[in-house]
Amino acid sequence: MKKVVCFGEIMLRLAPAGYLRFEQAQAFEAVYGGGEANVAVSLANYGLDAAFVTKVPDNPIGQSAVNEMRRYGVDTSYMLKGGSRLGIYFLEKGASQRPSKVVYDRAHSSIGAAKKEDFNWDEIFAGADWFHFTGITPALGDNVAEAVLESCKKAKEHGLTVSCDLNFRKNLWTSEKAGKVMATFMPYVDVAIANEEDAEKVFGIKAHGTDIEGGKLSHEGYKDVAKQLKERFGFKAVAITLRGSISASDNNWAAMLYKDDEYYFSRNYAIHIVDRVGGGDSFGGGLIYALKSGMSNQDSLEFAVAASCLKHSIEGDHNHVSVSEVKTLMAGDGSGRVQR
Amino acid sequence: MKKVVCFGEIMLRLAPAGYLRFEQAQAFEAVYGGGEANVAVSLANYGLDAAFVTKVPDNPIGQSAVNEMRRYGVDTSYMLKGGSRLGIYFLEKGASQRPSKVVYDRAHSSIGAAKKEDFNWDEIFAGADWFHFTGITPALGDNVAEAVLESCKKAKEHGLTVSCDLNFRKNLWTSEKAGKVMATFMPYVDVAIANEEDAEKVFGIKAHGTDIEGGKLSHEGYKDVAKQLKERFGFKAVAITLRGSISASDNNWAAMLYKDDEYYFSRNYAIHIVDRVGGGDSFGGGLIYALKSGMSNQDSLEFAVAASCLKHSIEGDHNHVSVSEVKTLMAGDGSGRVQR
Amino acid sequence: MKKVVCFGEIMLRLAPAGYLRFEQAQAFEAVYGGGEANVAVSLANYGLDAAFVTKVPDNPIGQSAVNEMRRYGVDTSYMLKGGSRLGIYFLEKGASQRPSKVVYDRAHSSIGAAKKEDFNWDEIFAGADWFHFTGITPALGDNVAEAVLESCKKAKEHGLTVSCDLNFRKNLWTSEKAGKVMATFMPYVDVAIANEEDAEKVFGIKAHGTDIEGGKLSHEGYKDVAKQLKERFGFKAVAITLRGSISASDNNWAAMLYKDDEYYFSRNYAIHIVDRVGGGDSFGGGLIYALKSGMSNQDSLEFAVAASCLKHSIEGDHNHVSVSEVKTLMAGDGSGRVQR
Amino acid sequence: MKKVVCFGEIMLRLAPAGYLRFEQAQAFEAVYGGGEANVAVSLANYGLDAAFVTKVPDNPIGQSAVNEMRRYGVDTSYMLKGGSRLGIYFLEKGASQRPSKVVYDRAHSSIGAAKKEDFNWDEIFAGADWFHFTGITPALGDNVAEAVLESCKKAKEHGLTVSCDLNFRKNLWTSEKAGKVMATFMPYVDVAIANEEDAEKVFGIKAHGTDIEGGKLSHEGYKDVAKQLKERFGFKAVAITLRGSISASDNNWAAMLYKDDEYYFSRNYAIHIVDRVGGGDSFGGGLIYALKSGMSNQDSLEFAVAASCLKHSIEGDHNHVSVSEVKTLMAGDGSGRVQR
Amino acid sequence: MKKVVCFGEIMLRLAPAGYLRFEQAQAFEAVYGGGEANVAVSLANYGLDAAFVTKVPDNPIGQSAVNEMRRYGVDTSYMLKGGSRLGIYFLEKGASQRPSKVVYDRAHSSIGAAKKEDFNWDEIFAGADWFHFTGITPALGDNVAEAVLESCKKAKEHGLTVSCDLNFRKNLWTSEKAGKVMATFMPYVDVAIANEEDAEKVFGIKAHGTDIEGGKLSHEGYKDVAKQLKERFGFKAVAITLRGSISASDNNWAAMLYKDDEYYFSRNYAIHIVDRVGGGDSFGGGLIYALKSGMSNQDSLEFAVAASCLKHSIEGDHNHVSVSEVKTLMAGDGSGRVQR
Amino acid sequence: MKKVVCFGEIMLRLAPAGYLRFEQAQAFEAVYGGGEANVAVSLANYGLDAAFVTKVPDNPIGQSAVNEMRRYGVDTSYMLKGGSRLGIYFLEKGASQRPSKVVYDRAHSSIGAAKKEDFNWDEIFAGADWFHFTGITPALGDNVAEAVLESCKKAKEHGLTVSCDLNFRKNLWTSEKAGKVMATFMPYVDVAIANEEDAEKVFGIKAHGTDIEGGKLSHEGYKDVAKQLKERFGFKAVAITLRGSISASDNNWAAMLYKDDEYYFSRNYAIHIVDRVGGGDSFGGGLIYALKSGMSNQDSLEFAVAASCLKHSIEGDHNHVSVSEVKTLMAGDGSGRVQR
Repeated sequence: MKKVVCFGEIMLRLAPAGYLRFEQAQAFEAVYGGGEANVAVSLANYGLDAAFVTKVPDNPIGQSAVNEMRRYGVDTSYMLKGGSRLGIYFLEKGASQRPSKVVYDRAHSSIGAAKKEDFNWDEIFAGADWFHFTGITPALGDNVAEAVLESCKKAKEHGLTVSCDLNFRKNLWTSEKAGKVMATFMPYVDVAIANEEDAEKVFGIKAHGTDIEGGKLSHEGYKDVAKQLKERFGFKAVAITLRGSISASDNNWAAMLYKDDEYYFSRNYAIHIVDRVGGGDSFGGGLIYALKSGMSNQDSLEFAVAASCLKHSIEGDHNHVSVSEVKTLMAGDGSGRVQR
Repeated sequence: MKKVVCFGEIMLRLAPAGYLRFEQAQAFEAVYGGGEANVAVSLANYGLDAAFVTKVPDNPIGQSAVNEMRRYGVDTSYMLKGGSRLGIYFLEKGASQRPSKVVYDRAHSSIGAAKKEDFNWDEIFAGADWFHFTGITPALGDNVAEAVLESCKKAKEHGLTVSCDLNFRKNLWTSEKAGKVMATFMPYVDVAIANEEDAEKVFGIKAHGTDIEGGKLSHEGYKDVAKQLKERFGFKAVAITLRGSISASDNNWAAMLYKDDEYYFSRNYAIHIVDRVGGGDSFGGGLIYALKSGMSNQDSLEFAVAASCLKHSIEGDHNHVSVSEVKTLMAGDGSGRVQR
Repeated sequence: MKKVVCFGEIMLRLAPAGYLRFEQAQAFEAVYGGGEANVAVSLANYGLDAAFVTKVPDNPIGQSAVNEMRRYGVDTSYMLKGGSRLGIYFLEKGASQRPSKVVYDRAHSSIGAAKKEDFNWDEIFAGADWFHFTGITPALGDNVAEAVLESCKKAKEHGLTVSCDLNFRKNLWTSEKAGKVMATFMPYVDVAIANEEDAEKVFGIKAHGTDIEGGKLSHEGYKDVAKQLKERFGFKAVAITLRGSISASDNNWAAMLYKDDEYYFSRNYAIHIVDRVGGGDSFGGGLIYALKSGMSNQDSLEFAVAASCLKHSIEGDHNHVSVSEVKTLMAGDGSGRVQR
Repeated sequence: MKKVVCFGEIMLRLAPAGYLRFEQAQAFEAVYGGGEANVAVSLANYGLDAAFVTKVPDNPIGQSAVNEMRRYGVDTSYMLKGGSRLGIYFLEKGASQRPSKVVYDRAHSSIGAAKKEDFNWDEIFAGADWFHFTGITPALGDNVAEAVLESCKKAKEHGLTVSCDLNFRKNLWTSEKAGKVMATFMPYVDVAIANEEDAEKVFGIKAHGTDIEGGKLSHEGYKDVAKQLKERFGFKAVAITLRGSISASDNNWAAMLYKDDEYYFSRNYAIHIVDRVGGGDSFGGGLIYALKSGMSNQDSLEFAVAASCLKHSIEGDHNHVSVSEVKTLMAGDGSGRVQR
Repeated sequence: MKKVVCFGEIMLRLAPAGYLRFEQAQAFEAVYGGGEANVAVSLANYGLDAAFVTKVPDNPIGQSAVNEMRRYGVDTSYMLKGGSRLGIYFLEKGASQRPSKVVYDRAHSSIGAAKKEDFNWDEIFAGADWFHFTGITPALGDNVAEAVLESCKKAKEHGLTVSCDLNFRKNLWTSEKAGKVMATFMPYVDVAIANEEDAEKVFGIKAHGTDIEGGKLSHEGYKDVAKQLKERFGFKAVAITLRGSISASDNNWAAMLYKDDEYYFSRNYAIHIVDRVGGGDSFGGGLIYALKSGMSNQDSLEFAVAASCLKHSIEGDHNHVSVSEVKTLMAGDGSGRVQR
Repeated sequence: MKKVVCFGEIMLRLAPAGYLRFEQAQAFEAVYGGGEANVAVSLANYGLDAAFVTKVPDNPIGQSAVNEMRRYGVDTSYMLKGGSRLGIYFLEKGASQRPSKVVYDRAHSSIGAAKKEDFNWDEIFAGADWFHFTGITPALGDNVAEAVLESCKKAKEHGLTVSCDLNFRKNLWTSEKAGKVMATFMPYVDVAIANEEDAEKVFGIKAHGTDIEGGKLSHEGYKDVAKQLKERFGFKAVAITLRGSISASDNNWAAMLYKDDEYYFSRNYAIHIVDRVGGGDSFGGGLIYALKSGMSNQDSLEFAVAASCLKHSIEGDHNHVSVSEVKTLMAGDGSGRVQR
């Protein structure tokens, strides 16, 4: 299959061991991840050619981010070197009623300071048929937003399918700004991915009858949101992940796909959480793989949900699972029996 | 707000990593805690001035106990230096049907050998309006019991509110002795705190209709116990924590407050446990903060229960949570959604 | 009580910390275990004389296996030295819907290359009254199978009770071969132990009405299997463990004993899993101890199930629990309340 | 003794374990330190009242920096909260011929964005008789340089002794800029501290006859530098540390003091290095303590050198040694015999 | 520059933390390395295109070996999948008078079972101008030796320069066999690399006047050996590393190059050792880079020695240093001063 | 060879990782050791039957001490259970000029409270021909001293050789008391072992011309001490270890044996230290093994010194080396070359 290109940020994630709070930590576990980088790793783990486009500082920390991506088979030819720093985020894992906590230290990063001119999309898109970005990338700065717009236009010129995870981040921009900027990319987007809050936070589109905090999911409400999204922007497909947060330790997880004028709902997974960061990204990665592979709409959705269900059992931002592992779960085996 | 003074023991806690049994361990994680020290840290974390009064050996282990308290903002001016050793307890974390196990090595400690004359209560209580101790402190030795009696009298002289967590420890003394000694302090106590067993073990007061081992809680039984306690000793308030032990991994947690002739029951939390040691202490810390802050009786109870619910998700003896974190949970958000 | 002799393999188990996947690991935790070694450790932990018979390489890795057994009180006089390597297995712990994964690297091991002549059973069985082996041992090679046959014959000559855990391993041999070879030992076996799949995989005996993958257990089906086993081979007792896999994190656990023409079913335990490897072995160890101790049939079963329930809360292959800990759980206290 | 005030930066230091290179690390050990913070900790460890003045972000990382200082007894009342981030530096420990490597990520820090108005020096200097800063603080930004100038003036108004470690950092500013800015503070400085390169890099003052890279130290050259410094700025005392770098594992360490028109040279220590970061700061801390304590000039120098010699054997930025430990070494006992 | 191809084994290295002996370890640090893999990583770290050719099992352990090579930028297209296991070696780090100890468990590995037909050298050598292998590869089995012979012939057909590190391993074959087999490759070899023992152990060529155990190096003796090697096999260059083992903690390190009829001796480095495994391989990597880069003979030797000097300060098998780091040391700066 | 019996204390040793100071530690590495236990482990490692006699508490910490001894092959049949606690010592590893530091917390231990009647020496000494104790054991309490006297008498009755390491501990008793008590055992002692200070501290016997602190050793002085010891108590052999402390990282190590009216001096080892605790004990273990094995006097001394030289490179209290490893070093190979 042809190459998938992901464009966005990669950060150094620093997390205390186990369930220690920040103030108790004398060490941090380090992984390198970010919304679009995580999708690229998912795809490489499925055996696809996946390239990750970003900019990292020309120092050992930036190089370590490159190495982590290389390690898992991602094409890093377009991880440019320059700028002043790698964005950092500190993660404190929650448990039971105590939520996970993220402290961002991502300002002034190399990618945040990158410019449209840094990226040669004609070269980058050679051999590719899919382009993926998220709402985080343009939120990093107006200059990056310009680069995203350019990338979208070029992607369409090269005939790529474009997917976008709305991924609203309130620390990076306001809903107002997000709505305005994101709207400029939407005409180029074929597949929109969102979680239960993004559509409202970015575009003011509300899921009627849905009480997110209470973990209750109304199918009708989600259908309504998907339909509104499609109608406004003309997407070919809209996928929405449905997280039911019982506690920081236990979540329900499912998703919906609106495609070809049909609504598909996945089975629901009751998950005991190891690490939920990157859960949404792993859904995106699974969906792209499944759609590229020509699975049916229902199967594509089930693949994406099963893939992202498994992510919640894996440490770090990335989803380290194979196609066959996802398919086993998708086929109904979530019993966790030892595989010898 | 004025200062809270806590008087008691601080020990070195040594625990194998994760769920290793003692016999498997080649290393121990070290934290410093104890019933009254834990309350002091809770209060300092809420932004109160909290002083911890004790005696530790004049060696690096004693100093490390001081440092740990300083680190979290507790006033350590009255952590006296002297005596021969810091008490130690070994903790093996339980899971599922296997209970946590504590091996005490606390005899001959500096605080256990401390004398009434060591403590200048007039100086210690300057600027304070609350004094807290637990049933562990007098159990450390007759000399310490004398110091406790002195501290109670002095606290009353200085007009302080006095709270006492009954905290019966069968390894330190018998029910008979505990009952006799504890009774001498009760006239000075305003707020009595107990778990579901203490009232019976210390004062022979039984909760009718309560099957503790089975995790079943009878509201009427607890009311009865609280009433008996109040009637016998004239407390202004009686608080009882209600733990429902499903397994070492999962507990129910709630509490009751009897105050101003009313019985208040908190909501119940289904907790997936990270570390339950110090759960009761964190309840005491929460209650003191809430009462001092002028919250309503129901809110005070809910604050204390939410605070101690969160403690179960935190490693170590201390409860490292802020007022706003407790209030968020108290307001109903226990969904554990990531805080970015 | 007289000595129990266990004969089989001990391997070096290498597992990433926590829930890391193999590809994420930069270190492996090392323990030494194996089906029969695990039973020997269980028995030593119960205070019995237990000897483990095997062959390990004469190098520091082999010595470390010996040391681990010595550490927990097993008689290692018959852990012969020689051959080229210690078998290894890599274990990746699963969580939630992601199953645990085992990668075996056990070929060409010292025990796999051992010969009948290596073992002086007359000497080994002196002072013993029980012999235990599993279906793994003969699967290691025809030469080892010969040694097992010899050991069975000698055990009977010396009047020992013989127990065998069928323990089918599809990576070591086919069902066909297993069926043929195992059948040659069965005439010497008094107590047969199996999990929910073994009877079918080894002897083609099916439990009607049992859907193992779905975690549903039919009592009638298990009775049927036990009866067929007894009828075919004349066992004095047949024990079958009943695992209900909800996920890699949560299992149900129970067992059945068919003895003296009666069927006994144990209570069921809902287990939150720490480490399930060795769960079956700990059942065997518990059963042998209970039967040797003269407990009633029902008690013997309950002891074995409670013992193996506790194993699931303990890291590593071995079951580090005492008789009194098992009896406490067996008596109904699985509440996990802290033991001070 | 009266309080010492230190003003400057505190950073999160992230270092791979042991001698791992950045690219090999999957975790970082975390300590909090910085030139002036390190001096404050040294002084607190000697039993002095030491306050550290800085600005840290109002998030858990900033709080952890405060906690670390509190832990070791530093007065943190003037560690202001605000701004956007805590500066970070990544440290890779060198060994043998491979040098230690520092990657700075300190731009845009809270202290770097602090303004003159943030600091109420009248309040801060109450009860103090010594003020310490280094050349790093003004290099953080023109705004901080203004605050330093203000602090110097105020210190003099309050009659404090002022010490300054020149501490040139080429990543923060050029020699030209440093020379200009630093010169504005020098009229207020009583005690100047420098390493073998600072005088040249900041003020263009060269030590004739000294080959730093080669690790050769010319006493005459250092005298010359000290004299030039004193003549130009009118210091009461000039101290210069003399490091002879044999390799990243082995250094020679000594110092010179020019005071009361005399040149004092310390004994030399051949050091096997554990962690050399903060070596210079620990010299400054030792010197301030010694001078405040009224030691003779020679003893003050020897105390400072012995203190900083010991620092090289201690992990982290801070020098965790007591006065008696320093005095023991100063008295000639560097034999390292076990202290029981 | 054109690609370098390295052909050989990669193993999982398992080492206790720090200086623990095997019998004390409860965990092993895991890295993936081997003589030729180490050379490939060196070259990739210098920015060259380096491909590593081998065969690893198609399981997560084999994949982890691939990932480790990818992580550091090596082309892994020809790391074939198949066979039964990855070779393992256990490493116990020595210190002072206690030597490091290696326990090999490398038999029956995937590469050891690989056949000539597995490797398509025409494809592999496309775009390459250098081929490197060591005496370990053919020692893995006659089948592998055949593949090596084939690779040598093909390399010459494609006009590649061929380098070979003699690297005698007494556990893999006898001197007799090594001599015979290695002799068949030598006609194709341009650059021969050896340590102070290899020439004698493989080809019976003795360095007169050299007492290796005593750590004394006779220049004349080495010249003699190099000359004999060249005369017998017609090499274009012969390089010999000269290790002076003072203890497991301290070594002297230098080398000699015989090329263009001249003998070149490098400077000597007194090394304080972090990890000396892979020291010889890093010399080979440095030499290949330097010769390909067109450095002078003396510079090439100095580059190779400086590179391998640095390796001794780096954990693991691989040499993680850059060209500029090597050149800095080569230029004489081994002072280990902190690089900020 | 016949059994060796060692009688004394075993403690839990708690040490921060690496070179962290106590105040920096959040975890302690745990090993179990003590003067006589260390000798027993040495002997078991040499393949001798070695029994360790002591008393430990009947709790998991006491059991862990038993397990550690079992793990390394020591006969633990006479490690009695009872009393209240296991002695603890905290160890902070020194480096360079910073000395290692020991904080004892050994009072009130089970062995310290043991009584003469606890030990059935007739049973213990069956099958033994050597008895070893140290000056630490009787220092634990008068009751233990009585037991030691009893053990000495019984040992002589059973015809055992008795060795005693004087091992003066100033924290346990005064020189005066030590001198008096130790003198009562000396008539039963055949082999006396001492370090450079013990003879003076216990018996007031001074080595003329020896400057211990300065690390200078006068052979004549030591001869004089040995002679005086022999003359006063009639020992068959006197061995004195000679430590030259250059720093906490580097020591010289040698020893002297006075036997059969001859003085033997060993070669000297320049040691780079990993862990020097137990160095003296490993000398004792080596000497006992060598003398029992019938080595010559010079060889016995060299074996003991080489054994204890190696101990300094091994973590923990115990000396984990084999006879062949000691003999290799004794034969002159301290070059530390990798053993493959």
